[in-house]
Amino acid sequence: MPLFGNDYLAGCHPAILERLADTNLEQTPGYGLDPYCESARAKIRAAIGSTEADVHFLVGGTQTNATVIAHILRPHQGVIAAEEAHIFANEAGAIEATGHKVLALPSADGKLGAQQVQDFIEKYYTSSNIKEHIVQPGMVYITQPTELGTVYSRAELAALAQVCRHHSLPLFVDGARLGYALHPNVSDVTLADLAALTDAFYIGGTKCGALFGEAVVITNDVYKPHFRAMMKQRGGLLAKGRLLGIQFDTLFTDNLYQTICHGAIAHARHIRQAFEARGIPFYGTSATNQQFPILPEAAATRFIRDFGFAAYWPAENGRQTVRYCTSWATTEADVATLLRAIESL
Amino acid sequence: MPLFGNDYLAGCHPAILERLADTNLEQTPGYGLDPYCESARAKIRAAIGSTEADVHFLVGGTQTNATVIAHILRPHQGVIAAEEAHIFANEAGAIEATGHKVLALPSADGKLGAQQVQDFIEKYYTSSNIKEHIVQPGMVYITQPTELGTVYSRAELAALAQVCRHHSLPLFVDGARLGYALHPNVSDVTLADLAALTDAFYIGGTKCGALFGEAVVITNDVYKPHFRAMMKQRGGLLAKGRLLGIQFDTLFTDNLYQTICHGAIAHARHIRQAFEARGIPFYGTSATNQQFPILPEAAATRFIRDFGFAAYWPAENGRQTVRYCTSWATTEADVATLLRAIESL
Amino acid sequence: MPLFGNDYLAGCHPAILERLADTNLEQTPGYGLDPYCESARAKIRAAIGSTEADVHFLVGGTQTNATVIAHILRPHQGVIAAEEAHIFANEAGAIEATGHKVLALPSADGKLGAQQVQDFIEKYYTSSNIKEHIVQPGMVYITQPTELGTVYSRAELAALAQVCRHHSLPLFVDGARLGYALHPNVSDVTLADLAALTDAFYIGGTKCGALFGEAVVITNDVYKPHFRAMMKQRGGLLAKGRLLGIQFDTLFTDNLYQTICHGAIAHARHIRQAFEARGIPFYGTSATNQQFPILPEAAATRFIRDFGFAAYWPAENGRQTVRYCTSWATTEADVATLLRAIESL
Amino acid sequence: MPLFGNDYLAGCHPAILERLADTNLEQTPGYGLDPYCESARAKIRAAIGSTEADVHFLVGGTQTNATVIAHILRPHQGVIAAEEAHIFANEAGAIEATGHKVLALPSADGKLGAQQVQDFIEKYYTSSNIKEHIVQPGMVYITQPTELGTVYSRAELAALAQVCRHHSLPLFVDGARLGYALHPNVSDVTLADLAALTDAFYIGGTKCGALFGEAVVITNDVYKPHFRAMMKQRGGLLAKGRLLGIQFDTLFTDNLYQTICHGAIAHARHIRQAFEARGIPFYGTSATNQQFPILPEAAATRFIRDFGFAAYWPAENGRQTVRYCTSWATTEADVATLLRAIESL
Repeated sequence: MPLFGNDYLAGCHPAILERLADTNLEQTPGYGLDPYCESARAKIRAAIGSTEADVHFLVGGTQTNATVIAHILRPHQGVIAAEEAHIFANEAGAIEATGHKVLALPSADGKLGAQQVQDFIEKYYTSSNIKEHIVQPGMVYITQPTELGTVYSRAELAALAQVCRHHSLPLFVDGARLGYALHPNVSDVTLADLAALTDAFYIGGTKCGALFGEAVVITNDVYKPHFRAMMKQRGGLLAKGRLLGIQFDTLFTDNLYQTICHGAIAHARHIRQAFEARGIPFYGTSATNQQFPILPEAAATRFIRDFGFAAYWPAENGRQTVRYCTSWATTEADVATLLRAIESL
Repeated sequence: MPLFGNDYLAGCHPAILERLADTNLEQTPGYGLDPYCESARAKIRAAIGSTEADVHFLVGGTQTNATVIAHILRPHQGVIAAEEAHIFANEAGAIEATGHKVLALPSADGKLGAQQVQDFIEKYYTSSNIKEHIVQPGMVYITQPTELGTVYSRAELAALAQVCRHHSLPLFVDGARLGYALHPNVSDVTLADLAALTDAFYIGGTKCGALFGEAVVITNDVYKPHFRAMMKQRGGLLAKGRLLGIQFDTLFTDNLYQTICHGAIAHARHIRQAFEARGIPFYGTSATNQQFPILPEAAATRFIRDFGFAAYWPAENGRQTVRYCTSWATTEADVATLLRAIESL
Repeated sequence: MPLFGNDYLAGCHPAILERLADTNLEQTPGYGLDPYCESARAKIRAAIGSTEADVHFLVGGTQTNATVIAHILRPHQGVIAAEEAHIFANEAGAIEATGHKVLALPSADGKLGAQQVQDFIEKYYTSSNIKEHIVQPGMVYITQPTELGTVYSRAELAALAQVCRHHSLPLFVDGARLGYALHPNVSDVTLADLAALTDAFYIGGTKCGALFGEAVVITNDVYKPHFRAMMKQRGGLLAKGRLLGIQFDTLFTDNLYQTICHGAIAHARHIRQAFEARGIPFYGTSATNQQFPILPEAAATRFIRDFGFAAYWPAENGRQTVRYCTSWATTEADVATLLRAIESL
Repeated sequence: MPLFGNDYLAGCHPAILERLADTNLEQTPGYGLDPYCESARAKIRAAIGSTEADVHFLVGGTQTNATVIAHILRPHQGVIAAEEAHIFANEAGAIEATGHKVLALPSADGKLGAQQVQDFIEKYYTSSNIKEHIVQPGMVYITQPTELGTVYSRAELAALAQVCRHHSLPLFVDGARLGYALHPNVSDVTLADLAALTDAFYIGGTKCGALFGEAVVITNDVYKPHFRAMMKQRGGLLAKGRLLGIQFDTLFTDNLYQTICHGAIAHARHIRQAFEARGIPFYGTSATNQQFPILPEAAATRFIRDFGFAAYWPAENGRQTVRYCTSWATTEADVATLLRAIESL
């Protein structure tokens, strides 16, 4: 049975594997200083429309978040994030292990609002408390798309960026699933917008067609120096760095990155429509590859067992909110199998 | 005008100063290895009814909390605390700076409930998420009295201790203001109860009659070794350690510690009754030296200005929740001055 | 021109790539919980002769060292290592970033002697200084082979293990290049010896035939719990963990791991003999894939330029100590090319 | 018997105790925001001839070093220090616990040479190694006087400062015993020189007449912001901060700080001359209150036992290097008693 529990169940896009095989016995310098990394950097810079950005390749998301955040913050500062944020809820305290507090704000949909962030920062600066007793907000972390599949629009991102700039706080976007947010039907935020509106962001590979890998883009000059030293210190400087270069070079050739993710979005919607046709409601408004149907108990049990759906929260009337994901690797046949099960609901 | 903004506005009980003067030119070993520290340890052990407890003296509360928590936790663990907890809200990220997350639970009155902690721990262990992605609860931190002046009863503390032991989680009590909770009219929890029901706690000196100093009591053998090394590493091993020994030796002679705090409680109640007689409501149920009247705006402004009351939260109808504190240093004359102002409300 | 600058210049053994391709579109659970990791664990347990050992897969060496050391040490402790040790000299402060001091001991050949470690530990315990002011030795870290290509014999390792056990210090072996030390002509220490004599060690993949990956073996029960949480927190829990399982499963099938490394050793010796035939002396006694010829200046410049030899230290008479490495990927043709250059010296 | 084992054996100068008593029941704001701290800051600024310097008061030396160093360094950087430096040898890993490596350089006399530091920095920048694998030197830490009682001259300090500025490395001076180095017969470095030549330094109180306390002076604007937040986070923001203000205000009134330390220097020399008259050699060239006679075994045992001398290192012919200290608290009578014992050698 095809599984829909997550978007990192399969290997990588075949084009990547092919290039890994083609280059396998070549000798190249280590640690990201090889021509493949250089080529991938150039293609990413072209895709984001910024010739000045620094681009670095790390292996995984938790590693990337901890490295970027520890790099940007001063020791007395914390990072503002939504309570649903991966760094707050699902990274085993990786940020705190670098010495920093995650300043978590409530969020029903996984997003931070510009006004909400503005209010939080102002509360810090206007509090009658002695400032030194409270953690200073030092940056803002958001995910695009969020852990709940929602996305920021360009206007929302611009508003958030404006608040951040007003308070001199850098804005960092975790794009672990960024490929699934880049379709114009999902969000009008482009790679170029991310480069223009944020101080740093990353383009997720692990969940978007690569075996592994995340491409960090740093656009703010202040944060460019010494990032490679941080990568090394935090265990994120891959010896055979070309493995990352080759993967991102492939993904950013002929727009492969976005193309393969678009298929996943279409599949996710197709499945959603099938559920909705059977009267199944959904949690939230996700337009991406993660979807959260609210299933009756028996159905939840069955889809969890047969298709690897992930159990999320109990819902009313004994129902269960579950999650299914599609990915670049999802096939028509996979979807057809699932649709048959949905039809029998 | 006498100030009521906090309980660390004045110096120390005169008996302490006298002994510091008497011993000033004596030569003693440093770092808490002197006879005064030994004597203070013996008296504290007697007061808590445990000859086996380790007793250490540190200078301040934030230092004490960070040192104890970093000492007890393993690196993958976090500490459960109420959202109002000093370590979560008012210590500038000191715990996170040691690498650990504070797992904050909501609390209206500053206390953690046994059931609430039980539920949180069980949620961790029964979650369908992969355990390794979530911070493991590694200990429970509470304050007695709390930041809102409330106290645990012996039954509440015992229930919490039972949950902790059931899950093998150590229980640590921050007693920065412990002296104000030891009166039987305030709480039936005694020093002996704390020693019996917790793994470690501290007896606050800074806010209870000393110039500075907190006495950490470790009753669980597991956590006794190497605590002094942690103190040194975290900057908490005072060179002239006898200054702490002399202070606690004095406070634990003839029950001075509790005696001087009882006066503060009486004063706080007297003032509360005066406010209540003028129809002023209070936030919460504090029976200790911290009180939270909800004043009309003009009155709030006046008491903040004239008596150093601390502004807390805005309340309904333009009112303001403020805080006043009494302490061991509050005099009858101070109270009388304040009462006159209250009468004019 | 073939390069000899390091042992991570090429991709991976073709058998690994083949299996990655064969399994690419399979769906498996993430984070090392897949059948390939299970199979690799079983094969490693068989190879080390310990059915009880825990086996974990991480991506790189710096990450592995920092995770294991932070997992084992208590916060007041440091790790004993040679001054040449990778963790002291070449990991960008990764250990210190976890809060621990590297207690570096001098070493001419990259090895720690049992007596040397014994003396250091005794000096700590018998020093008249106050113990709490000095970092307590908490574990011993060695590399096999060392950064200078030398190896511990079984007797040396046993002597070191005895000192460690006498003082209750865990012994951890960094085996980033372990494959090159497993040939009986190089060292009589076997995988089974490592399992029997140490508390934890790792089997290096990155430099021994894999694309990336290090297999951590924990034999001491005390250090088994919660290691996966540490991996996640330190960014070392690979989402598509099967990539590591597949690689180590392949390397530990039909003894591939040792077989492919043996070739490198033969090549290294062959090259050494050619240098020696031209009267070139060597630094140290390396019998492994790393060799340190001491070349006249012109020759050093040439071999650095043409074959990527690494510059190490200036030597007497304007000579230069350089390093060349062979690896599992070195071919007969590569060696022949290099030999021709040596002959013209 | 008077003890000479250290310079923190007694309490404080009587003038301090008197002022603590006089002000004891006053109410002042906490955390260093009181008038006494303001007054002490003004006096220190006057003494160092810099109206722009920031002055902060912490309780102890280890705390101060860790807070300043963690405040100044970026996470990928380490601090250069001599191997004898307090932060490397005697602070229980406090610096490493903040995540930073101490880059220790050998030193026979406890001092760092300008050329030595220059060479070390250049080695880092010119090494053929990949920079990111090595800890970047981020600041220089020295002690004045050193742990071996030696001092920097103004020329030496200026040379070191020039190297630091050339490489944009801040220079930080630990002045735990600064008072004993300020006499013109000891060193020509003045407080004004320290302010002019360094980026930050501290004026030690604990060992120079105070009960406790170190006054941090930050002269470089870059490092001024947010230092109080760091103090709070590291447990170094004393609640009753005025205790520090009162002490330093007293010490910096009528030049008391230097006056009381000068006596100690005279005593130390007097004792040294007595030893030398008996043919006792000394280790090093200390002109300060710490002296290191090399005693025959029996004499060493006797002076350790009777006068609390500290055992340092074994010396040739069964001799022992020991340390004695005088302090502001040493009396003529103390010295006379010791001299009688020396005469009987």
